[in-house]
Amino acid sequence: MAQAAEPPSGTRDFLADDVRRREAAFGTVREVFERYGFDPLVTPAFERIEVLTGKYGDEGDKLVFKILRRGEHEASGEADLALRYDLTVPLARVVSTYGSQLPSPYKRYAIGPVWRADRPGKGRFREFTQCDIDIVGSSSELADAEIIAAVNDGLVALGVEDFTFEINSRQALFGLLEAYQVPDSLGGQVLITLDKLDKLKPEQVVAELVERGVAAETADALVADLASGDVGRIRDKLDASERGKRGLAEVDRGLELTSSLPAGRVVFTPRMVRGLDYYTGVIFEVSAAGYPGSIASGGRYDGLVAALGGPDQPACGGSIGLERILSARDAAEASPRGLDVAVTVLGADVEMARLAGELRAAGLRVGTFLGATRKLAKQLKWANTQHAAFAVLYGPDEQAAGEITVRDMTTGDQTRVPLSDAVSHLQDAVSHIRG
Amino acid sequence: MAQAAEPPSGTRDFLADDVRRREAAFGTVREVFERYGFDPLVTPAFERIEVLTGKYGDEGDKLVFKILRRGEHEASGEADLALRYDLTVPLARVVSTYGSQLPSPYKRYAIGPVWRADRPGKGRFREFTQCDIDIVGSSSELADAEIIAAVNDGLVALGVEDFTFEINSRQALFGLLEAYQVPDSLGGQVLITLDKLDKLKPEQVVAELVERGVAAETADALVADLASGDVGRIRDKLDASERGKRGLAEVDRGLELTSSLPAGRVVFTPRMVRGLDYYTGVIFEVSAAGYPGSIASGGRYDGLVAALGGPDQPACGGSIGLERILSARDAAEASPRGLDVAVTVLGADVEMARLAGELRAAGLRVGTFLGATRKLAKQLKWANTQHAAFAVLYGPDEQAAGEITVRDMTTGDQTRVPLSDAVSHLQDAVSHIRG
Repeated sequence: MAQAAEPPSGTRDFLADDVRRREAAFGTVREVFERYGFDPLVTPAFERIEVLTGKYGDEGDKLVFKILRRGEHEASGEADLALRYDLTVPLARVVSTYGSQLPSPYKRYAIGPVWRADRPGKGRFREFTQCDIDIVGSSSELADAEIIAAVNDGLVALGVEDFTFEINSRQALFGLLEAYQVPDSLGGQVLITLDKLDKLKPEQVVAELVERGVAAETADALVADLASGDVGRIRDKLDASERGKRGLAEVDRGLELTSSLPAGRVVFTPRMVRGLDYYTGVIFEVSAAGYPGSIASGGRYDGLVAALGGPDQPACGGSIGLERILSARDAAEASPRGLDVAVTVLGADVEMARLAGELRAAGLRVGTFLGATRKLAKQLKWANTQHAAFAVLYGPDEQAAGEITVRDMTTGDQTRVPLSDAVSHLQDAVSHIRG
Repeated sequence: MAQAAEPPSGTRDFLADDVRRREAAFGTVREVFERYGFDPLVTPAFERIEVLTGKYGDEGDKLVFKILRRGEHEASGEADLALRYDLTVPLARVVSTYGSQLPSPYKRYAIGPVWRADRPGKGRFREFTQCDIDIVGSSSELADAEIIAAVNDGLVALGVEDFTFEINSRQALFGLLEAYQVPDSLGGQVLITLDKLDKLKPEQVVAELVERGVAAETADALVADLASGDVGRIRDKLDASERGKRGLAEVDRGLELTSSLPAGRVVFTPRMVRGLDYYTGVIFEVSAAGYPGSIASGGRYDGLVAALGGPDQPACGGSIGLERILSARDAAEASPRGLDVAVTVLGADVEMARLAGELRAAGLRVGTFLGATRKLAKQLKWANTQHAAFAVLYGPDEQAAGEITVRDMTTGDQTRVPLSDAVSHLQDAVSHIRG
């Protein structure tokens, strides 16, 4: 009996169909990013531990997988390496390692696994793939707009329909607080609470704001205005403060520079905060019909590269939630890749090995029967499990006639073909079926 | 100043050209394996530690990267997970996990990183990519031949020229020992010594054999015959023992079933041992002009899957030394991927963002200038560093005329084109250049 041999908790084995589906999605997104002139970057699975620690806050630090020192130091129980937790810290490290050897600005994409010792749960894994684009070294609003356009094209290429970029600006958010006379000292905390408006009821958010020290009236007015969805009203408020004006200008510039996207694709959403406090400019989140939560997000984070140990350079970026998108369609798209031709072996092994080689050289996907039996029925059963389009039979009759039998595995129709015509016949037959 | 920020010892960052070169090679090999009906498999980067320990011998065990337990257990300094050391143990685990859900035989390929805490050195890394194909569940010699043919096609597709499969059989090797009357009890040790014939002088090998307990005359004769390269003489010797006969039959069957490969591609090499003692049948190694050591290897290892914790199933496989092949051509093939079109920005940002979007939608690789300057000279310099084929200019003159200037970045020639024809003009121009 097979022993219990699951992959480690929170990780997954990807068998054939899964790998093909995932690789196809990765390839689709890669192609879009390449079209934007982003360069690929692949960094090691682990970094020196000091590169990672202190970068993700106390909670994040606990989720970093640490690797034991080796050799005589192993007994110390100390770690000197750690698995990467995201693709952003390695980017900051790379910018610092290669400096001026990199193009400026440095536009890179990275699609690869990251590891987090999170409690595994539905849709939450300890090994999962992130998909990031970032532009380091440009303050231009064209860079922000390019990130949005590239994420947009990526989602379209992935077949996501009916999605919206909700954009906002950190400046606009702080301007809003100013307009409602929330003390600066409370600002960050207040934004964290406001971010919960899409999950909690307005009165719950008000209560939390009051708890944080916001005057009850102010909290009421702020939440009411944000929850109302009356963007015109918010715009008026923003116009009343310097920071608000600057934020609004940022948002409007973002809308203008992405105006070639379909109408309604990018919308100003004043209540959208983005939890992470390292954003400094335009921020965005993408929601789509049929997907839970957001399927992409990003923004400008000018101080982050320096904070993560890199040089002080402006930067903006975006991330596509590939795992979320892939898992939302798990069920729908599992179509196994079948063989074009299943070569049965009824004796004449050498000839069949040769024929299989010729068929492959002609570009066909070909399997040869590798079991011990010489019984045709069993071999045809195998051909079926391989989802083969055609099977080739070469028994004593065929051998005597110098022919093969080609069996259409869908219809069961059989045709005799001279052995010498086998390759061209099967090439035609397969291209006919595969369209 | 950037701090010292190298990737961890023995690992590498892959920047744009490297990633593209590596991904292209991976894709080439994948395509070949798919043509043979091999299925892709991707397993987690780490396994439960008990899956890995005890599988690689004492030396190997020391090279396994171990991951600290997390949370309250971290202080214990114990490890419960470990980074995969090869792709074979995960395969054995997967065969045991999924059993009859897998196709039978299970033909899988895997191309992915493995991690070994080896002393880093020239061409020896702590993170490197392995490329394996294996067939689990078939005893057929057609399976062995299919591995050889697939590895052959993979090497050809990778552009390796002038290479040879040296094949042998474990049975033939033991038959040889029998023919020279080497005691069975010394067999394994003797083979390990004979394997050094390609590195040591014959007399050194003789001395080591004698040290291991082989009679001096026997050692002399054995080494002389193997070193002579007189295969006919070895064949005669093998014919004199039962095991030798069986081994010779295995080798001859292998030669026969791969006879459609170019003449001389597969040759019987009686002195070829393969260091690893888990092989049970036909074994092979590939050497190629211009590459140090072997660039591929494999064989039949019927007991291995069970020994590694999987079910008791026959298996054979092969491995392509992708890292070795890639590093041998590092220098030769670094051609950066340039932009098709560099869009300069001399004002009119919105129009240029829109044009860039349209050019990308037409399939071109397009970068927009993201710096702060509006000076054309600096922007053209940027276009040059991007290896752009063309640059688009849209200054006040062009704006007034509703035209763009298209600059051929190789010749410096400039053409004025109506803005409305920009996409089709550049599409033609690029396809003309890219051929």
